[in-house]
Amino acid sequence: MTSFLAGPLLTDLYEITMAAGYWMHQVQERATFSVFVRNPDHKRNYFVAAGLEAIIRELECYCFQNDDLEYLQSLKIFDPAFLDALGELRFTGDVYALPEGTLFFPDEPLIEITAPIIEAQLIETLVLNTMGIASLIATKAARCTHAAEGRPLVDFALRRTHGQDAGDQVARSTYITGFTATSNVRAGKRFGIPVAGTMAHSFVTAFDSELNAFRAYAATFPDAAIFLIDTYDTISGAHHAATVAREMKRRGHTALGVRLDSGDMLALSRDVRRILDEAGLPDMKIYASSSFDEFKIADIVNDGAPIDAFGVGTRVGVSADAPYLDIVYKLVRLGNRDIRKLSPGKVTLAGKKQLFRRVDEGGMFQEDVIGCREETLSGMLPLLTPVMRAGRRTHSARNLREIRRQFEDQTACLPERYKTIHRYEAYPVKISPRLKSMQLS
Amino acid sequence: MTSFLAGPLLTDLYEITMAAGYWMHQVQERATFSVFVRNPDHKRNYFVAAGLEAIIRELECYCFQNDDLEYLQSLKIFDPAFLDALGELRFTGDVYALPEGTLFFPDEPLIEITAPIIEAQLIETLVLNTMGIASLIATKAARCTHAAEGRPLVDFALRRTHGQDAGDQVARSTYITGFTATSNVRAGKRFGIPVAGTMAHSFVTAFDSELNAFRAYAATFPDAAIFLIDTYDTISGAHHAATVAREMKRRGHTALGVRLDSGDMLALSRDVRRILDEAGLPDMKIYASSSFDEFKIADIVNDGAPIDAFGVGTRVGVSADAPYLDIVYKLVRLGNRDIRKLSPGKVTLAGKKQLFRRVDEGGMFQEDVIGCREETLSGMLPLLTPVMRAGRRTHSARNLREIRRQFEDQTACLPERYKTIHRYEAYPVKISPRLKSMQLS
Repeated sequence: MTSFLAGPLLTDLYEITMAAGYWMHQVQERATFSVFVRNPDHKRNYFVAAGLEAIIRELECYCFQNDDLEYLQSLKIFDPAFLDALGELRFTGDVYALPEGTLFFPDEPLIEITAPIIEAQLIETLVLNTMGIASLIATKAARCTHAAEGRPLVDFALRRTHGQDAGDQVARSTYITGFTATSNVRAGKRFGIPVAGTMAHSFVTAFDSELNAFRAYAATFPDAAIFLIDTYDTISGAHHAATVAREMKRRGHTALGVRLDSGDMLALSRDVRRILDEAGLPDMKIYASSSFDEFKIADIVNDGAPIDAFGVGTRVGVSADAPYLDIVYKLVRLGNRDIRKLSPGKVTLAGKKQLFRRVDEGGMFQEDVIGCREETLSGMLPLLTPVMRAGRRTHSARNLREIRRQFEDQTACLPERYKTIHRYEAYPVKISPRLKSMQLS
Repeated sequence: MTSFLAGPLLTDLYEITMAAGYWMHQVQERATFSVFVRNPDHKRNYFVAAGLEAIIRELECYCFQNDDLEYLQSLKIFDPAFLDALGELRFTGDVYALPEGTLFFPDEPLIEITAPIIEAQLIETLVLNTMGIASLIATKAARCTHAAEGRPLVDFALRRTHGQDAGDQVARSTYITGFTATSNVRAGKRFGIPVAGTMAHSFVTAFDSELNAFRAYAATFPDAAIFLIDTYDTISGAHHAATVAREMKRRGHTALGVRLDSGDMLALSRDVRRILDEAGLPDMKIYASSSFDEFKIADIVNDGAPIDAFGVGTRVGVSADAPYLDIVYKLVRLGNRDIRKLSPGKVTLAGKKQLFRRVDEGGMFQEDVIGCREETLSGMLPLLTPVMRAGRRTHSARNLREIRRQFEDQTACLPERYKTIHRYEAYPVKISPRLKSMQLS
């Protein structure tokens, strides 16, 4: 059994050298770091928070192992007494965060961590890495979910994700934003996500004919067969699939459908639909899987293609049009001082924060206000909630179905104009007068 | 200790459903699958092979555990007798591959796997995922190495890579293609890569002044200090760094340098160089780290900016301009039949292959020929070498320094015109007459 924990060495070296600097100079005040996403190129109208549960799991078990400390010792840059202190270190901080599945906007805090500065500094890289990939893909996948207008989507990205861990995170993030299943079996086991799959071209070519390949598959999965029909020619493939589906019907079974994987999806889907209908198989579904992302899904849905479900792979699994979030972790308070950074283009708002959202009488989002942690704004909902206190989680882990429901509830309340994938629509985000006044002092 | 093995469940479900189909129909011939990279958008002139060692490690230990089989049983789609067979299954195949660090070109085979079809099919996703991320980043990083013209590059990408595993793979792939170090401590430990790091803005703001922050860091790392100077203002930061460096000098220590992280890199590096020189610190280096990739590095090198080394992060860590390889795994031979696939735009060359390279008398690459595995082409070097036989590795693992040397040797032999990052230059890749004739039959 794999724990899937990254462990404290998954960090930039400078987090540890800074920790050594704080330790030597006895800087041990409590620090608050705030995480937010910048949006300089305006490629996204909103983001979806994800990755929190993985962070909580890491922080609950945060501990340098002996072999970690031996490795650090071998670098010959650290005082042994500092490494002893590191061996004793656990995460004892408090964490406020947006629940996974919450929609958020540029510059809004999605997680704030308050802990003795050494602890809070050491976990920076881990927090950014974990929350970054999860929220990046959740955001990309949410756009696909909107574009598909209710048609099922299945994650097929594993072969092209950036490694193993990304494969699992893509399965999880696409599932919480509305995908129905993943092809990734490990993610299915790890997270309890439904798994789905059909066949590859190699299966078809491994038999002496396409017809016999379909027959073999139908015999193996008499109630779950989806035939990949483009290995040789999609139209003749559709006829072969229809032939085998009718044979199955005579034996009391039902073929689920066919999969298109290349060519002109609109024309082919229409031709294939007609072939299946004329064969008396109106219930057989058409699945399509050829470089789909939110843009291609929207186009084909608008064209009225008779495609029932999409396999979505590479372009969503790497968020190809925007393959990283500009996500940052900034010191905003130390002891009783609020802290700002003034580097050009990288100004940070000082102080512990709360994020507030105003909704209209129908529950639709109207505007957000970034305020101070301790303030209350009348008629507005605070969105950051405590998730860890003194290093322990405050609630048991939410299951993926709850997170999925959170995303559904949130998107139902997002006005349609922000769901467009074709142009930038800036959602109104303000700064509370009290927070603003703190920036001037 | 983590094994870092993905395990056999890191696969698309369809690999297992196809395996079940082969098992039920007793398709047990030996199959050869060939892996290659398509290059439809012409964003790369060459690719760098990487990821092979990770694949060999997975295949040597390939084994479904009991809890894997229980999970598959719980899906209620597999015959229990098939799952029993899966529990017994090990990888028994032969693997030919390009050594890591080898340059290759579109459509060339980089790995070919021959095994009983069930085994060869099951590992498809794992092979593509592993080789894909490693070669994607090695290729991107190689372009940076060329652009930097000998200046050291350090991998700073971990906070923005697609998860933990990607972070480690980015560190490894950038190192084998010429980077000098990584900030990723876990990758340093895991792969024996040198680690490097400086400080973050939070460290500077955690002290009552920038000057005192630099003094604290210098006291902690008297012989390894690099000061981040843009927290408030880069020019005054440079003066503060110079002040502290002179204090260190009087105590017999040497500051390594300063780091620029925002603003106009050309103008700032010139100003900072002058400040350091005028302070009698000509040996202090200038490091720069602000959204660098091969394009920005080439520009600043061409401008003659006095930058000594680059921290390279996000854009390389996700290969931002081309965030995935179009890498595929195709059945090319089954039993004694050569296999083709004819889907539009996705034609595959049938048969087991060898890749040959012709070099001139100076050793420079002239052209490649994709041929049959068994043929010899006079005066040309075969590049695919056996790396596993009957499921066991044929050689001990190569260490990263050997792989790095392989990359250096290869790039020294690549004509300059293919190293350009600004335009597509198609390297000549031919198909041998014998392989061509096999496609017609």
